[in-house]
Amino acid sequence: MKVAIVGATGAVGRDLISLIENRNFPVSELVLFASERSLGSSISFKEKSLPIQILKKNSLEGFDIAFFSAGSKVAKHYAPLAVASGAVVIDNSSAFRLDPVVPLIIPEVNPEALWNHKGIIANPNCATIILLMALAPLHKRKKIKRMVVSTYQAASGAGAKGVEDLLQETHSFFTKETYHRQVVPFPYAFNLFLHNSALKDNTYNEEEWKIICESKKILKDDQIGITATCVRVPVIRAHCESVNVQFHEYFSAKEAYEILSSSPGIKILEDKLENRFPMPIDAIGQSDIFCGRIREDISQPFTLDLWIVGDQILKGASLNAIQIAETMLKIKHPNQPKR
Amino acid sequence: MKVAIVGATGAVGRDLISLIENRNFPVSELVLFASERSLGSSISFKEKSLPIQILKKNSLEGFDIAFFSAGSKVAKHYAPLAVASGAVVIDNSSAFRLDPVVPLIIPEVNPEALWNHKGIIANPNCATIILLMALAPLHKRKKIKRMVVSTYQAASGAGAKGVEDLLQETHSFFTKETYHRQVVPFPYAFNLFLHNSALKDNTYNEEEWKIICESKKILKDDQIGITATCVRVPVIRAHCESVNVQFHEYFSAKEAYEILSSSPGIKILEDKLENRFPMPIDAIGQSDIFCGRIREDISQPFTLDLWIVGDQILKGASLNAIQIAETMLKIKHPNQPKR
Repeated sequence: MKVAIVGATGAVGRDLISLIENRNFPVSELVLFASERSLGSSISFKEKSLPIQILKKNSLEGFDIAFFSAGSKVAKHYAPLAVASGAVVIDNSSAFRLDPVVPLIIPEVNPEALWNHKGIIANPNCATIILLMALAPLHKRKKIKRMVVSTYQAASGAGAKGVEDLLQETHSFFTKETYHRQVVPFPYAFNLFLHNSALKDNTYNEEEWKIICESKKILKDDQIGITATCVRVPVIRAHCESVNVQFHEYFSAKEAYEILSSSPGIKILEDKLENRFPMPIDAIGQSDIFCGRIREDISQPFTLDLWIVGDQILKGASLNAIQIAETMLKIKHPNQPKR
Repeated sequence: MKVAIVGATGAVGRDLISLIENRNFPVSELVLFASERSLGSSISFKEKSLPIQILKKNSLEGFDIAFFSAGSKVAKHYAPLAVASGAVVIDNSSAFRLDPVVPLIIPEVNPEALWNHKGIIANPNCATIILLMALAPLHKRKKIKRMVVSTYQAASGAGAKGVEDLLQETHSFFTKETYHRQVVPFPYAFNLFLHNSALKDNTYNEEEWKIICESKKILKDDQIGITATCVRVPVIRAHCESVNVQFHEYFSAKEAYEILSSSPGIKILEDKLENRFPMPIDAIGQSDIFCGRIREDISQPFTLDLWIVGDQILKGASLNAIQIAETMLKIKHPNQPKR
């Protein structure tokens, strides 16, 4: 298969390249695209050095799969062109996620939604993926009524420059030098702030709104109540989520523990004596999502508290995208339109 | 008035000394006590240098007020001795907080509970004070039914050594030197972890349980449902709390905003266009508690989301203790037993 990566030089793009190599994804040719800033650079793949190319109108002709991780604007413009010339696009931006004809996929959760795709498949927001990896197996057993989510999101969610801002500003805290942040809007050294995506008219910010709308679409349940508060913390990589989830019937912590213990892609990390529960550093570079502090909420019947942690660049983005492609190759549903 | 501070060398004790000086608290003599480690040291107060004394059986005789900030064990042993010899004790530990005869006081919230004290007055947990400074004025208008709290707590909650662990371990992240943490149980540089207080049988940790039990006592309402998840983040000072609060009737965000705007000790910090809401660095060294992101929760009727930030060593501990003493001196209720 001929594979394109659009946005190859970002954190997600680079992870995609490693994953394609390490998971032996069936690729006959890999072509890397990025913006003009990256012209002249190259990235190694299977002992070869692949040059970065600039995306042009006809660049995406002749591909089987194109992974997009280049933001909504690029996706809106180029994804339809790639599809028109026969490719399946797996897009990591929010451009198509809520489009009713576009499947929004977490392979462990809703692989069946892949069957009727029309060429574009959307990769959910990282915080949504991490959340639903733990909640979807529970929702499958007993329906969720409502959830309250508070996030602890890492600097790398704001890109490589977000990490640089965190590290450089923290370093300058010790050296007393002056550092001018590049992308992070507020002081970040030993500080935290509300997620800096724009507020909607209903005063939820865009990140919170993604969690709300995408979760309902993926769980195929518009009746679930969801509220979220998204916060950026001075952590390099891996997002944490404190979740309070109310079901329509009694769900014991023990049953939730047992379900999550046997769910694919989830690991429970709970040592109650040592107070050892998932932390960002547990999740960095890991494919699994980690869960712990599974408790019955004493304030309300049928309700659990959970703590969920995951590498938002891996399972929250690149790994999920590759798994979508792998699932698509596997399922080959008889009703799927021939492309 | 003759005033003692027990635990004078800790962060809260040192702030107490500054506050007594800066607020012109009516003190004729101030005596500072600490553990044997501090023997030989002294702390300046009103241009004098006060030597640190070691607490002995008869040390607390003859005082009018004794501020305790030395943990539960010291409080349990020495507070009754101080009271027996005529002092009023204002204790910052959890030793007496849930004792039914001990008032648990936030002066802006429940000053009337001071009237019938029996000599010991308890200062609530820092996270409880910060939470209720914002929620009590709302509860006064319309009753709270249930709240879900997720905290983002600073290193200084674990004492001066907690801060040293955070700073030194982060510094060693850059220098590649080895640092051995003193009190923090888990890697703290660019990492976070669940609050490391012991888990109870119901799997809530002690910090969470304090928020739950103390809030019910202070609000004088056992029917309020409360759940909490307490998290330690790599921030030096000031705690943040993401709170989802359900009322018994409709409460508009606008009305909540107006109430909090005119509540003593609360400042609203909301610039929706600039995405500017309270951060830990806003609260450090500030007497006020900061609130923002006051939103109507779309997932459930009668419910608000709020974001609350406060200096947990000031209003969360030392300032609240001084305010308790100041309130006690002011109210002189006619029914108060003469001590």
